[in-house]
Amino acid sequence: MAIWLDQASQDFEAKFSAFLSTKREVSEDVNTVVRAIIDDVRARGDQALIDYSARFDGIDLAKVGIRVTEAEIDAAFAETDRKVVDALKFAAERIERHHARQMPKDDIYEDAIGVGLGSRWTAIEAVGLYVPGGTASYPSSVLMNAVPAKVAGVPRVVMVVPASSGKINPAVLAAARVAGVTEIYRVGGAQAVAALAYGTETIAPVAKIVGPGNAYVAAAKRHVFGTVGIDMIAGPSEVLVIADAENDPDWLAADLLAQAEHDAGAQSILVTDDAPLGKAVEAAVERQLKTLSRSQTAAASWRDFGAVILVPDLQAALPLANRIAAEHLELAVADPDALLPGIRNAGAIFIGRHTPEVIGDYVGGSNHVLPTARSARFSSGLSVLDFVKRTSILRLGPDQLRQLAPAAITLAHSEGLDAHARSVAIRLNGLPLDDEG
Amino acid sequence: MAIWLDQASQDFEAKFSAFLSTKREVSEDVNTVVRAIIDDVRARGDQALIDYSARFDGIDLAKVGIRVTEAEIDAAFAETDRKVVDALKFAAERIERHHARQMPKDDIYEDAIGVGLGSRWTAIEAVGLYVPGGTASYPSSVLMNAVPAKVAGVPRVVMVVPASSGKINPAVLAAARVAGVTEIYRVGGAQAVAALAYGTETIAPVAKIVGPGNAYVAAAKRHVFGTVGIDMIAGPSEVLVIADAENDPDWLAADLLAQAEHDAGAQSILVTDDAPLGKAVEAAVERQLKTLSRSQTAAASWRDFGAVILVPDLQAALPLANRIAAEHLELAVADPDALLPGIRNAGAIFIGRHTPEVIGDYVGGSNHVLPTARSARFSSGLSVLDFVKRTSILRLGPDQLRQLAPAAITLAHSEGLDAHARSVAIRLNGLPLDDEG
Repeated sequence: MAIWLDQASQDFEAKFSAFLSTKREVSEDVNTVVRAIIDDVRARGDQALIDYSARFDGIDLAKVGIRVTEAEIDAAFAETDRKVVDALKFAAERIERHHARQMPKDDIYEDAIGVGLGSRWTAIEAVGLYVPGGTASYPSSVLMNAVPAKVAGVPRVVMVVPASSGKINPAVLAAARVAGVTEIYRVGGAQAVAALAYGTETIAPVAKIVGPGNAYVAAAKRHVFGTVGIDMIAGPSEVLVIADAENDPDWLAADLLAQAEHDAGAQSILVTDDAPLGKAVEAAVERQLKTLSRSQTAAASWRDFGAVILVPDLQAALPLANRIAAEHLELAVADPDALLPGIRNAGAIFIGRHTPEVIGDYVGGSNHVLPTARSARFSSGLSVLDFVKRTSILRLGPDQLRQLAPAAITLAHSEGLDAHARSVAIRLNGLPLDDEG
Repeated sequence: MAIWLDQASQDFEAKFSAFLSTKREVSEDVNTVVRAIIDDVRARGDQALIDYSARFDGIDLAKVGIRVTEAEIDAAFAETDRKVVDALKFAAERIERHHARQMPKDDIYEDAIGVGLGSRWTAIEAVGLYVPGGTASYPSSVLMNAVPAKVAGVPRVVMVVPASSGKINPAVLAAARVAGVTEIYRVGGAQAVAALAYGTETIAPVAKIVGPGNAYVAAAKRHVFGTVGIDMIAGPSEVLVIADAENDPDWLAADLLAQAEHDAGAQSILVTDDAPLGKAVEAAVERQLKTLSRSQTAAASWRDFGAVILVPDLQAALPLANRIAAEHLELAVADPDALLPGIRNAGAIFIGRHTPEVIGDYVGGSNHVLPTARSARFSSGLSVLDFVKRTSILRLGPDQLRQLAPAAITLAHSEGLDAHARSVAIRLNGLPLDDEG
């Protein structure tokens, strides 16, 4: 049973604030271990990767090789169910088409006094994509990370994935093939992150590392941040469903459970202006839990973090939604466009009763890597922008310099930066240095 | 004396690699102290701010107040040299005009099968701007951080600045007035970062914190990252000057010293195809050092981290420049446009002999907050994009759902996520749940 919060009740604000600040992740302190692994990989390179993979993944990389061969990728592709390959291709095409629109344009121009200004975008030279092993080894996530990198024009996209218990999920390799990723290494954990950041004999270093992982991977990404770029550190998944009375409770229950089945720390929230609907959805959740393969995980998530929030009217849901800043927000209402302008903080919005969030996980075309844990207040989902960077451009001739120089010299002097002032002034007059010193 | 590296020499690659990996910052381990301060501010709020400010800044906030009053800002504005105020206004206008072009546009569209897709940009609700005290308290940095936030439409921009030795630099308050920042608190250090992230009785929390600071501020920003967004953690400043023979050595020396005077850890590099020019610039640096108020800092930076790199021709400078990925790159050559396309990694490029980097520090219009320590390989300077975030949008009707459903269901099942499959399938047919379970 999820908790119920009723905005009409006196203690709502206190309860809602407490609900907002509930921690859903056990923050394991793995920093000491991770730091040692990173140092070891920096010192011993490939040999360290071989040793850790023997210990953690039960695989002898000295024998099978660190790099996954083309023949292995071919075999995995052949082994993958044709229907799944087709679905991956269908998804990849939609993701590619949507992300192509995100490519930023250079903006080079001259201002009124002839100063050349501009922004020039270039792709990052090399990006590493971490793919988890085991049950969280999702082919769809390979597409969501690799396709935008390719669209951005990243020349080198590298994938690392642990061969947990000696084997890599063939569908993950098939997804890499579909996305055009050919450089794949069978390493995982903090050691893979270290190899991507610092390089080994076999793995050339990259400039940025993206992709989800466990506590060790997350800690390793934090450690190497600065040496390389990283994407966000994703927490457990979340959905917020705003629903009016006119919904099929089973549809909404299925949506809530689709989040809950990810992780016991996932969170599913229903906000409605109709108490009977809330009750009906709760009952449907209990019913549907019985026939789910991951019912234990989903039940724990719903019990510990699920919530039904009752509001007097749908407009009242908006300030709450903005404070929750959910990763996924469904608007299962008759007139979603009446609510849309009032939503400021959300990773992604799914509009109307026929847009279950799951479509966005796979084939909508938009990215499923989205800000969690209320970080939609200040950050965005993964996009082409994460794989490019901007260089700013400034170009002056003597005339422009003469016009901008006085203010620059005044500000430099006021900040006590004499060499700054001199670097401008010396170009103006060619007079002896002492004049500006 | 800076080091000399000659690409024609046998050991160049080894020496250049070593040069690239030189650390220019002592990384103080201040984490324990910072964590304690943050916990204390969370627990005791304003009283903790009052206690730390008494200890570190020698000021009694209980008496003078945590918030800087409007009357104080008025007084500081009146106290600031008129010429400086005018220069700040001139700079702010240019910064505003340039950054207005960076505002991203929403992109809402329907694809060929009628799926509604899109990106919607919204400003972050509240941003905190950290401004250091003491000598690094630069009014120009107030403009570079606050103006883009205002352009982005951030409704609440808050500034914190320590009253080091009881006083705030009046020009910093004048810059805040010029930029339209009215909510200012006289607190600094890790305690100010904690207050911005978690809030106190007086200071409401923000969603993102930007601005430079010392090791304590940087560590505090890393700690609160996740609860709030942060900008990059900036390292010491750098300039790379690519120069041909036809330069006035004094101009280039002034540019190199303008970086060097910032910090003993700053780095100034000259790359040239003309050894006599290199020698002449070196001599000019020594000469100019004698008349600089911050000559001690500049001399230490040039001695410890300065470099002259000799290349056989200017095109050979490009791969080196891309590996260095300098914060600032000057092209002091006859034909800069021949080099421009080959530059991939740089925070900002200053084109031609009449574009000293210092113009970009103050009045060029572009931002002076740029990626340091080789991070231009994967990140960009501060822009309007740092103050907005993107929400993705998906909208399907029954027809679109029918077309996308099969691939989504296939992928969900292949990933073992039954509730995902159900959330789509249940909308298609209304059949009993067991069909997809």
